[in-house]
Amino acid sequence: MIKRNGMLVVISGPSGVGKGTICKELFKRDLKDVKLSISATTRKPRIGEYEGINYYYKEEHEFDDMQKRGEFLEYAKVYGSYYGTPKKYVETNLNNGISVILEIDIQGAMQIKSNFKEAVFIFIMPPSYGELRKRIIGRATDSDDIINRRLKAALKEVKEVVKYDYVINNDKVDNVADKIICVLNAEKYRTSRCRFDFSKFKEESFD
Amino acid sequence: MIKRNGMLVVISGPSGVGKGTICKELFKRDLKDVKLSISATTRKPRIGEYEGINYYYKEEHEFDDMQKRGEFLEYAKVYGSYYGTPKKYVETNLNNGISVILEIDIQGAMQIKSNFKEAVFIFIMPPSYGELRKRIIGRATDSDDIINRRLKAALKEVKEVVKYDYVINNDKVDNVADKIICVLNAEKYRTSRCRFDFSKFKEESFD
Repeated sequence: MIKRNGMLVVISGPSGVGKGTICKELFKRDLKDVKLSISATTRKPRIGEYEGINYYYKEEHEFDDMQKRGEFLEYAKVYGSYYGTPKKYVETNLNNGISVILEIDIQGAMQIKSNFKEAVFIFIMPPSYGELRKRIIGRATDSDDIINRRLKAALKEVKEVVKYDYVINNDKVDNVADKIICVLNAEKYRTSRCRFDFSKFKEESFD
Repeated sequence: MIKRNGMLVVISGPSGVGKGTICKELFKRDLKDVKLSISATTRKPRIGEYEGINYYYKEEHEFDDMQKRGEFLEYAKVYGSYYGTPKKYVETNLNNGISVILEIDIQGAMQIKSNFKEAVFIFIMPPSYGELRKRIIGRATDSDDIINRRLKAALKEVKEVVKYDYVINNDKVDNVADKIICVLNAEKYRTSRCRFDFSKFKEESFD
């Protein structure tokens, strides 16, 4: 009686919030019918990385052609390399009832929002200003000036939370993973994600 | 940084689906900051029922006055007695951060929908046509004609699912309770239910 497609789930938040750690934790769990999106990139593979597992590795002209053909849900240039989310991987999985998780920065998330409204947008909120500050300082090997610029950017990014469907406070990584799983489950029960077949609503089972 | 009101949660479904059993199971769990709505009624208290615990017992003219003053979120006449959901009980709790669960038929739910859009609407779906049929027959002490009329009504009611936010299949009562709790938790993380205070987003904790 009830049929469901997979969902595209965007996990995003300010830089330094710990999105990567959360996604790793998430896939340690026993997730049914959920995959992590595989990006295309013009960056060269590092040792231990494999085509179609970590990334789809592309030459710049290939990436360029894909972009021109509208084959990306979003793309961006980061430190001289291009990264993009191929539409096809996402769509194939969703049509097969597999949900796809996309761990992505806020700009990318907003690109997805304009291309793929039915995605679920989850914002990871830093546990505190102090914590965010510590992480940004911890990461940077740069001058105070650059740290301050990053911090200022992160404080601006935090306000983007209102454009998301859900906000989860990054207190402890396993709490966050539990909460994300809860959101994924609840979203499955949303009527807007179900196709109902009332014609079979006779002497048969509903589901 | 993030403040939340309580939510009004409407649990509804076709007659005979087992809403009452599900709500009983729900309140066996350790629910934090959740209460069951208390209705006003013109029906006389039964033995073991108490004012303000099971119902608010009203004379018909009192109920009538309340209704005229717009003090009900919804009301209906059932088997000669009036039943209504007092706005005040719901609003006081929500303002105190307590969520309120309302177990109600589809007509009542639709009244709530027009008075209280921000409520969460959960539809309990019968596990199968056969099961629904069995329950309606099991309940009725009436003629085949009345049973058939009820069954027909229930089949019509099932299609109302599309007006709800969530649909949960009533396979096993404790599964259903788990899923409802999951929905309640996920809804807490919805940005549309949060008030953000970015002014405090300085050297303090976010939450």
